[in-house]
Amino acid sequence: MEKMRDIVKEGMRVGNEDPRRIIHAFKVGLALVVVSSFYYYQPFGPFTDYFGINAMWAVMTVVVVFEFSVGATLGKGLNRGVATLVAGGLGIGAHQLARLSGTTVEPILLVMLVFVQAALSTFVRFFPWVKKKFDYAILIFILTFALISLSGFRDEEILDLAESRISTVVIGGLSCVFISIFVCPVWAGQDLHSLLASNFDTLAYFLQDFGDEYFEARVEAGDYKVVEKRGRNLDRFKSVLDSKSDEEALANYAEWEPPHGKFRFRHPWKQYLAVGALLRQCAYRIDALNSYINSDFQIPMDIKMKLEEPLRRMSSESGKSMKEVSISLKKMIKSSSSDIHVLNSQSACKALSTLLKSGILNDVEPLQMISLLTTVSLLIDIVNLTEKISESVHELAYAARFKNMMRPTVYSDSGSIVRAMPIESHAGDHVVTVLHDVDTSSNNVDNSLGESSQNSCHHVAIKIVDDDHSNHEDGEIHIHTSLLEDVKRNDRLH
Amino acid sequence: MEKMRDIVKEGMRVGNEDPRRIIHAFKVGLALVVVSSFYYYQPFGPFTDYFGINAMWAVMTVVVVFEFSVGATLGKGLNRGVATLVAGGLGIGAHQLARLSGTTVEPILLVMLVFVQAALSTFVRFFPWVKKKFDYAILIFILTFALISLSGFRDEEILDLAESRISTVVIGGLSCVFISIFVCPVWAGQDLHSLLASNFDTLAYFLQDFGDEYFEARVEAGDYKVVEKRGRNLDRFKSVLDSKSDEEALANYAEWEPPHGKFRFRHPWKQYLAVGALLRQCAYRIDALNSYINSDFQIPMDIKMKLEEPLRRMSSESGKSMKEVSISLKKMIKSSSSDIHVLNSQSACKALSTLLKSGILNDVEPLQMISLLTTVSLLIDIVNLTEKISESVHELAYAARFKNMMRPTVYSDSGSIVRAMPIESHAGDHVVTVLHDVDTSSNNVDNSLGESSQNSCHHVAIKIVDDDHSNHEDGEIHIHTSLLEDVKRNDRLH
Repeated sequence: MEKMRDIVKEGMRVGNEDPRRIIHAFKVGLALVVVSSFYYYQPFGPFTDYFGINAMWAVMTVVVVFEFSVGATLGKGLNRGVATLVAGGLGIGAHQLARLSGTTVEPILLVMLVFVQAALSTFVRFFPWVKKKFDYAILIFILTFALISLSGFRDEEILDLAESRISTVVIGGLSCVFISIFVCPVWAGQDLHSLLASNFDTLAYFLQDFGDEYFEARVEAGDYKVVEKRGRNLDRFKSVLDSKSDEEALANYAEWEPPHGKFRFRHPWKQYLAVGALLRQCAYRIDALNSYINSDFQIPMDIKMKLEEPLRRMSSESGKSMKEVSISLKKMIKSSSSDIHVLNSQSACKALSTLLKSGILNDVEPLQMISLLTTVSLLIDIVNLTEKISESVHELAYAARFKNMMRPTVYSDSGSIVRAMPIESHAGDHVVTVLHDVDTSSNNVDNSLGESSQNSCHHVAIKIVDDDHSNHEDGEIHIHTSLLEDVKRNDRLH
Repeated sequence: MEKMRDIVKEGMRVGNEDPRRIIHAFKVGLALVVVSSFYYYQPFGPFTDYFGINAMWAVMTVVVVFEFSVGATLGKGLNRGVATLVAGGLGIGAHQLARLSGTTVEPILLVMLVFVQAALSTFVRFFPWVKKKFDYAILIFILTFALISLSGFRDEEILDLAESRISTVVIGGLSCVFISIFVCPVWAGQDLHSLLASNFDTLAYFLQDFGDEYFEARVEAGDYKVVEKRGRNLDRFKSVLDSKSDEEALANYAEWEPPHGKFRFRHPWKQYLAVGALLRQCAYRIDALNSYINSDFQIPMDIKMKLEEPLRRMSSESGKSMKEVSISLKKMIKSSSSDIHVLNSQSACKALSTLLKSGILNDVEPLQMISLLTTVSLLIDIVNLTEKISESVHELAYAARFKNMMRPTVYSDSGSIVRAMPIESHAGDHVVTVLHDVDTSSNNVDNSLGESSQNSCHHVAIKIVDDDHSNHEDGEIHIHTSLLEDVKRNDRLH
């Protein structure tokens, strides 16, 4: 009884976690009902016998092929269908061949053929690329070939067997595919897209909060709310650490899926994996960083404070950049607002190194510096990774042909979406004009770069921190108010 | 043609990587031949019909159930067998129930039953513990229940169907299990054990080489051999980073396996995962460390040199400790020689902090220190993790009842398995006297220390084990009473 209640409770948790699971369960039931009633009320052939032998294949196909996402179902269905077809043909061939060789040799030859085929196919399943995409096809191939070539039927019977097996497998498979696509579909591609965006959110959340956590952790140490919040944080970013296998499975399934929603044919699912891998690297650094927030060996606050400003900015600007990426991913638009934050975090990096050079830590003991400088080093890593991630997302946006935003592009390393040229330098600042062609938002980047029209360029004054570390106290990138307002407005529009 | 040659080449690579794959392919072929000839030459019943309908289940069972390792095969076979039995019984029940309710209601009732059963079972597959171990059973349960309850047979026919399905599944499953156990068995448990030991080897290799790499990297930068060697190193430890899913799958399979080789019933496979997780944490640190060997931002050698001695010792002693663990794992003996190296690495840690306190880095710029101190911090982490790992392996050795070695155990933090026996000292050996504070550990170590717990501390002469590591020219194991007490005291402080 107690056990029963536990199971019901777990069921409710599993259902709440993703309500599509409940719908999926009903869909499988529906598919089974469809297939079985198809055979129950068939207009042709005798009722019992035909059902017993053949409908079985349809029922079996439904149970085995129907997976949670459309991509997985399609992949399995295609694997099963094609393998059944090919193996059926070869099986009939083997059967005929054996029949020609006389009754004594026949069984021996057949068994030998089955042995060789099974051994070869089983070995092929170890090939990594086969294992990844066609494992199920090979399994069905071995199965169907053995069934058809070994069956001791006469010629016309075996053709019947092959034909009915193939037709029932096709019927079962098609039922699955139709129901899975047209009844509340679960698209693996959409899931992968959402997973990536939510991973960005998660890391952004941590990085934006990091400053408060690190510099106030000890002050409010007794506060229950703080501890609880940090606990939640911790759990959240840990999910990113283990996201690899989920991402790979989803990308694998997504490749089987037809165009759906905003995802066109040949959507660059592989690039999602590349971005995901970089994001995971960043999460590893965050994991290490997190251990320094909670470490027992705390550095005195007054030493920490010396580096507070640049450290806070580095992490919060990296976080903001990730937040922007997540927003642009969700909306599927090309956006460069993340680049501004990348630049800001890099300038904070520069400010930090200037600060360190100025000898601010000269009177601190090296032993105390270990933890502080490790934090510094991890944050520098994160800033560098943020830049790489931002580039990688630009590549993704380009390959996936995300829509252009009416938004000035400030920066790009790979030169894909951006144009920047210095016009005039004032005494202290580097002023950069960013040309952004608003008119060509629907076209490809190549076009928009070719003919940058005069009427639609924004002048942005960017105060870039010098390579030679001239002392800019804030080192922030100043974008003219008008432009920022432009950006804001566009944000609101979309 | 070119394509064909590529495939053959890949096949040879796959076969060379693990020749057991080739044997496995032959085993599957053999199982199919056994099952099919069993039905070909059966003494009872008509040839063709019986074969066509029933042997199919045996062939199918072989193809679907036969997996690479014994554990996976057993798990799948049991899942399939039990599910078929239960679903067969319930299916017959459902069929009888429907029959009693009259011919018009019958099909509707049956289809409803199948729908409810399929939906419920599909939902249950989302439960994590079901998904992990019983996913296949639920699949077969849905399948068999639908097949038997939907089949439009008369009562005696349906009993025949159920009986023949169950008996053929059992025959197919047993053939797989017997062949998989008695013909060149592949034990998942043995594989997991070897994987863990080889992961220890891999990390040990890196750590033992780290000193040379870090302190001589730039000197021999032009040397091709060095770069190549480092590349190999790098690839090797990276395999540990991704070992999680392999370890989990193997542990999952291993739990289905009967006692084999040195592995008894209820071997603590879960503890392997715990040790593996710690080892992976260590590998993450090593990954970061590796990036500092190759980083562009190199610190001047003279600054590095100041900390060379303790840093080298920390990493090489951690590495030696892991090497010892790997050896004791492979031999399946309880060994404490790793603890000595853990102690050594900890004492190097202490030496390092003394050095840092002495102000040796006072004239170094903080900016230059970032990379150096991060390396220091990572190595400290690794030393701490090495201790945890060593403890975790002791727990494993205890739970798995590894054989005791006639080898003195010096030190245990958790006090789980401490064994000490005096050995007479020879002139040439390194003789060390260790004070072991029994009082602090006697509560945990009640059994093993029972005989020696009268005196609060005892003297242990450690004869350094000569078979494994003969040259100690630097005399690394100089644990003096004072030092050990120091370590102990510090341990208590932390």
